Amino acid sequence: MGDRLGAMSRIDGRTPDQLRPVTIQRGWSKHAEGSVLVSFGDTKVFCTASFTEGVPRWRKGTGEGWVTAEYAMLPRSTNTRGDRESVRGKIGGRTHEISRLVGRSLRAVVDFKALGENTVVLDCDVLQADGGTRTAAITGAYVALADAIAWAQGKKLIKHGRKPLTGSVAAVSVGIVDGVPLLDLCYEEDVRAETDMNVVCTGDGRFVEVQGTAEAQPFARDELSAMLDLAVAGCSSLDAAQREALARTLG
Amino acid sequence: MGDRLGAMSRIDGRTPDQLRPVTIQRGWSKHAEGSVLVSFGDTKVFCTASFTEGVPRWRKGTGEGWVTAEYAMLPRSTNTRGDRESVRGKIGGRTHEISRLVGRSLRAVVDFKALGENTVVLDCDVLQADGGTRTAAITGAYVALADAIAWAQGKKLIKHGRKPLTGSVAAVSVGIVDGVPLLDLCYEEDVRAETDMNVVCTGDGRFVEVQGTAEAQPFARDELSAMLDLAVAGCSSLDAAQREALARTLG
Amino acid sequence: MGDRLGAMSRIDGRTPDQLRPVTIQRGWSKHAEGSVLVSFGDTKVFCTASFTEGVPRWRKGTGEGWVTAEYAMLPRSTNTRGDRESVRGKIGGRTHEISRLVGRSLRAVVDFKALGENTVVLDCDVLQADGGTRTAAITGAYVALADAIAWAQGKKLIKHGRKPLTGSVAAVSVGIVDGVPLLDLCYEEDVRAETDMNVVCTGDGRFVEVQGTAEAQPFARDELSAMLDLAVAGCSSLDAAQREALARTLG
Amino acid sequence: MGDRLGAMSRIDGRTPDQLRPVTIQRGWSKHAEGSVLVSFGDTKVFCTASFTEGVPRWRKGTGEGWVTAEYAMLPRSTNTRGDRESVRGKIGGRTHEISRLVGRSLRAVVDFKALGENTVVLDCDVLQADGGTRTAAITGAYVALADAIAWAQGKKLIKHGRKPLTGSVAAVSVGIVDGVPLLDLCYEEDVRAETDMNVVCTGDGRFVEVQGTAEAQPFARDELSAMLDLAVAGCSSLDAAQREALARTLG
Amino acid sequence: MGDRLGAMSRIDGRTPDQLRPVTIQRGWSKHAEGSVLVSFGDTKVFCTASFTEGVPRWRKGTGEGWVTAEYAMLPRSTNTRGDRESVRGKIGGRTHEISRLVGRSLRAVVDFKALGENTVVLDCDVLQADGGTRTAAITGAYVALADAIAWAQGKKLIKHGRKPLTGSVAAVSVGIVDGVPLLDLCYEEDVRAETDMNVVCTGDGRFVEVQGTAEAQPFARDELSAMLDLAVAGCSSLDAAQREALARTLG
Amino acid sequence: MGDRLGAMSRIDGRTPDQLRPVTIQRGWSKHAEGSVLVSFGDTKVFCTASFTEGVPRWRKGTGEGWVTAEYAMLPRSTNTRGDRESVRGKIGGRTHEISRLVGRSLRAVVDFKALGENTVVLDCDVLQADGGTRTAAITGAYVALADAIAWAQGKKLIKHGRKPLTGSVAAVSVGIVDGVPLLDLCYEEDVRAETDMNVVCTGDGRFVEVQGTAEAQPFARDELSAMLDLAVAGCSSLDAAQREALARTLG
Repeated sequence: MGDRLGAMSRIDGRTPDQLRPVTIQRGWSKHAEGSVLVSFGDTKVFCTASFTEGVPRWRKGTGEGWVTAEYAMLPRSTNTRGDRESVRGKIGGRTHEISRLVGRSLRAVVDFKALGENTVVLDCDVLQADGGTRTAAITGAYVALADAIAWAQGKKLIKHGRKPLTGSVAAVSVGIVDGVPLLDLCYEEDVRAETDMNVVCTGDGRFVEVQGTAEAQPFARDELSAMLDLAVAGCSSLDAAQREALARTLG
Repeated sequence: MGDRLGAMSRIDGRTPDQLRPVTIQRGWSKHAEGSVLVSFGDTKVFCTASFTEGVPRWRKGTGEGWVTAEYAMLPRSTNTRGDRESVRGKIGGRTHEISRLVGRSLRAVVDFKALGENTVVLDCDVLQADGGTRTAAITGAYVALADAIAWAQGKKLIKHGRKPLTGSVAAVSVGIVDGVPLLDLCYEEDVRAETDMNVVCTGDGRFVEVQGTAEAQPFARDELSAMLDLAVAGCSSLDAAQREALARTLG
Repeated sequence: MGDRLGAMSRIDGRTPDQLRPVTIQRGWSKHAEGSVLVSFGDTKVFCTASFTEGVPRWRKGTGEGWVTAEYAMLPRSTNTRGDRESVRGKIGGRTHEISRLVGRSLRAVVDFKALGENTVVLDCDVLQADGGTRTAAITGAYVALADAIAWAQGKKLIKHGRKPLTGSVAAVSVGIVDGVPLLDLCYEEDVRAETDMNVVCTGDGRFVEVQGTAEAQPFARDELSAMLDLAVAGCSSLDAAQREALARTLG
Repeated sequence: MGDRLGAMSRIDGRTPDQLRPVTIQRGWSKHAEGSVLVSFGDTKVFCTASFTEGVPRWRKGTGEGWVTAEYAMLPRSTNTRGDRESVRGKIGGRTHEISRLVGRSLRAVVDFKALGENTVVLDCDVLQADGGTRTAAITGAYVALADAIAWAQGKKLIKHGRKPLTGSVAAVSVGIVDGVPLLDLCYEEDVRAETDMNVVCTGDGRFVEVQGTAEAQPFARDELSAMLDLAVAGCSSLDAAQREALARTLG
Repeated sequence: MGDRLGAMSRIDGRTPDQLRPVTIQRGWSKHAEGSVLVSFGDTKVFCTASFTEGVPRWRKGTGEGWVTAEYAMLPRSTNTRGDRESVRGKIGGRTHEISRLVGRSLRAVVDFKALGENTVVLDCDVLQADGGTRTAAITGAYVALADAIAWAQGKKLIKHGRKPLTGSVAAVSVGIVDGVPLLDLCYEEDVRAETDMNVVCTGDGRFVEVQGTAEAQPFARDELSAMLDLAVAGCSSLDAAQREALARTLG
Repeated sequence: MGDRLGAMSRIDGRTPDQLRPVTIQRGWSKHAEGSVLVSFGDTKVFCTASFTEGVPRWRKGTGEGWVTAEYAMLPRSTNTRGDRESVRGKIGGRTHEISRLVGRSLRAVVDFKALGENTVVLDCDVLQADGGTRTAAITGAYVALADAIAWAQGKKLIKHGRKPLTGSVAAVSVGIVDGVPLLDLCYEEDVRAETDMNVVCTGDGRFVEVQGTAEAQPFARDELSAMLDLAVAGCSSLDAAQREALARTLG
């Protein structure tokens, strides 16, 4: 397989194990407690973290907070305009599925006791799509969440000394295209992939979510292994980008 | 009234007849045939124009095209997060009303015969709101529409020599705050306004829409006149900004 | 323009500044606290005002009341049967828009402190449509509202000496047809109008709402002025009709 | 039971076997092909029959027509205002059930071959409710349907010599209150009834629908018989009222 | 008519007054407080009774309980697959109507004071349909309800000595096919029936619901009588089957 | 870890690598082309495969068929009754997600060219839930699909010699409970699991879907490996059960 990897040229000239250029711009909204414009190549997702005191009814009195997420695509974020889900009057299965994935991924690094009875809603709206929107959303939402929590700490809405974040989280897609495992598929690669996998990792390299789907044909154990290797390395790079973004002073 | 005008200082230091800083960035999406990020101060609206061949069923065989618009606010575009209309399963009255206003305003400068049986959908998504989102949406959507039509002309999708745009259109809000007519209200002014008016003008200074609403108390004929004067001048400045934006070469 | 006005004959023989025959029948329902069948020519709208103690949750404890409105058309109120919005499962944009307009217009003459924590819901159901349904609805709803408030005063549900109504409100449409400004358009005129405007005035001649729309072509400032003149005079006649109706003893 | 019948005085002074005053006003809408305002005492239902050429897709090419019905109550037709089903976004079970009943009842007297590929939609909107709205709706809808068919025959939309109506149909409620069978219950009687029954008959005295419901306690065979006797007699009177209404010249 | 009855052979060899084989299997779910798989020939309905403490809001503080029902068909319970109502986003009229019928029928034998402020929800899901699904649902739901109440008595959730069930209830369909009254129609007979009737009786032979519908032509009083005779006898046999089922020890 | 595995006793006495008793009953519906009642312990799912000629519009003329799935839970399939999604008017995220998973899993073993322009809809309705409903659904749906395809081959609806199934597919859940990897979690284990994974395999042991979720804490690479080992072995046993079921003669 190595030879093929060496010889192959990806659509955009990347090597198989190379991420697209990643940018994470914080403070993109004057209203939200945390806000990020994240881009993985031409994929751009606007993530806001809305911090509010109080929790949903089913959680009241537990002393624990809550984090949830909603993902959506703007109608013309894709090559062909899609109907607005608000106009259709219902949310599609894909939107539901990704919203749930983003929420679960972020909750994996939150200590709800430390958060106290507060809620953070993460909104991830895709402004431009070119593959990997859900992984960009998770990666950006983590940074927005971190900013919202820092904001709440500054406002003393979280008890002194409490650390609601137990770690960081980032996500990347991997896939097998023409038999070659590739990291961070763009849309054109995604369409051609035999297998498509989204992997969410913590900053210390453990798994939060592993979702692999055989698109064209079932995959073998060694292919799964190769994809996981790429994904773990990719998430590690994204973790570095998140740290760097958070280290900057927010204007 | 003149004295009060002279003495008064607006929240952001503007004079009563002054617009907020206006920016119109074209080419903001790689997918849409026309796309603009328009800002009126802190109000930012992302406008895309999607050009497709063909028309809705009720229009087929007429030889005429169609232009329609959808307006929406991202959940955290405002100071307090609002529920997503897709999640609530229905579009609110305000959204409906503004979508219809934007569509009507743009259709006022379109020659549907010249457009031929093609459709342009204008999506105006508010990324950040600070008053005047509907007027920014109309002003930006016109530029996106102009770009989409130029694109279609380049692709020969519109017959040679036909001019689907019969003019330009821009919009601005005016209101009376503490008895003083003001141009282009920001959110804080809007909340305090006794009367609120949205005016849509063509580039040659005629009216496409005039919508005045007494918020706190009914308004007199001379107040209406003063507001119209401000609005016509404001639209004229916006018309200049649109021309300037369209004169730039699109990267 | 004067000559044209003099020479012109409207479809139904009216002069340009003439209203259609207006009737306002009170007490049209045995259940509602206020009820009116209003007709502007062949346009007939059934308006009920339902008075209930208490206010919506967001208003509780403020000591202030609330007034809201819902407008709808019966499916066969028009020439061609329309789908029921209850069957389609959602309210259309036009219905939303008019319901909001009616509610705002009535609220403009209500002192919510004087009303106390009570709610009035105005239902305006179009039984037969021939243009001007929204203006007939506002004009009739005011009378139903006045009756409902009188009923509540009789029942001591409003504190002695309080006057929840600060004035009266009426509405009329105006438009420009073949270059001539006309008052109170019937459906056939409305369809042909270049410009269509709805104006809501208080009994003392000030504006509550001014909504002008260029249907076929943008309109100039002097045309706007001519339309406003007609509308103010029309609303004044409607105000007289409202007073006369309210002066009658309710059987 | 006879003695009790003789001694009893109904709320409104009727004898047990007496209908409320019934009025059937035709031509109540200028738009609909058939239209009727029917009243059974204080119950008032506005029925329109909309005739259109063509049939629903599933019926195309069969040479047969279709008749369907929609029933609804205006929000303040009852003593307490009910939510609009269009606003709630769905039709309630009771509305569904009655719409289906009205449609089935009317279809029972239609020869679809004779109607040809045409559709009649019957809209029955309750303006004021005081018990028996569904039976008034059926009784009025029949007259509206007859007028719509006569209209279509006049327009030659139905083949010469064809008779789409095979008979007439009327409906009435019966019930047992304090052990006494009563005809045509008003709301107050309906609430107190142990058993409530709606009966739809053809003009020749046969049954189209018989729907009896034990509200407070199960009913015996002889009680059922007594109710059916009352209903058959009541429908016969309604049939006479329908004939009389249809015999009048429509202004 | 007697001769025809004697000579006739039903599709499945039954005599006109014969039920299909009826089975009532209790304890079909490990979760529900009462659960039954009831079959009337090839019609199979899964009925669960869910007992919960507390009542809906409108019933709180009355000391009375509540019983309600929901009926639904699995998409492929019929010969041709039907759309899921959850996917279509709304419940159809037939489903609404039958759910209401089942609820009313069961409530007819419940003493809500004796039940106390507890709620039982009866879910009747049709696994396989071959005519008579609503009557099988009622017949099975009664047994599930009886089991749920016995369960609650065992748990002391109902006061000692109270008897929430005042009787039993069963239901059967009857119809007229080719002029012959038949008991318990299977689907093929139902489709051919001129008249179709559903009858719900208490164990002591009184009526709870009588719903007769002329499918192909109106029916006469003696036909109604003949159908009622068959139905009363059929319900009596079903009552025996219910008693037998309830007499068995629940594994 | 081995020692803990040896020492541990699972709630129901199974070893960590042991499936619950699996039963696959074919021919459970007289209407569906394929139908199966599958049970994994107390989890029971009713799967039907509905074969119809023709394909959805977007697929017409391609010569290829389509396979899709809908999953749902009966309201009282769980310990506490859940609201019906049809009554709520929308499908929840979990239902959407699982329906999509089942459809994708089955499509992975279908050759759409060989199927021709035919559609199979798989309905998986959970009658009783005790963990692993989605994996039971996939496992049962495969058998129903195989029966529906055999039926279509018998009816010559699929071209002679074509094999629409390219393999078989089965699914199982695995998880880590108290640090120990366990196969086929029952509900009680599922609730306590730190990590939960669903694995869909083909009969030849390759992966179709791998979905692992950290419930309580992120998981390491070796834990992922241990879970995959268990899952592959479990699917292999399920594959044997499927073969055995399909080898039986269908009554």
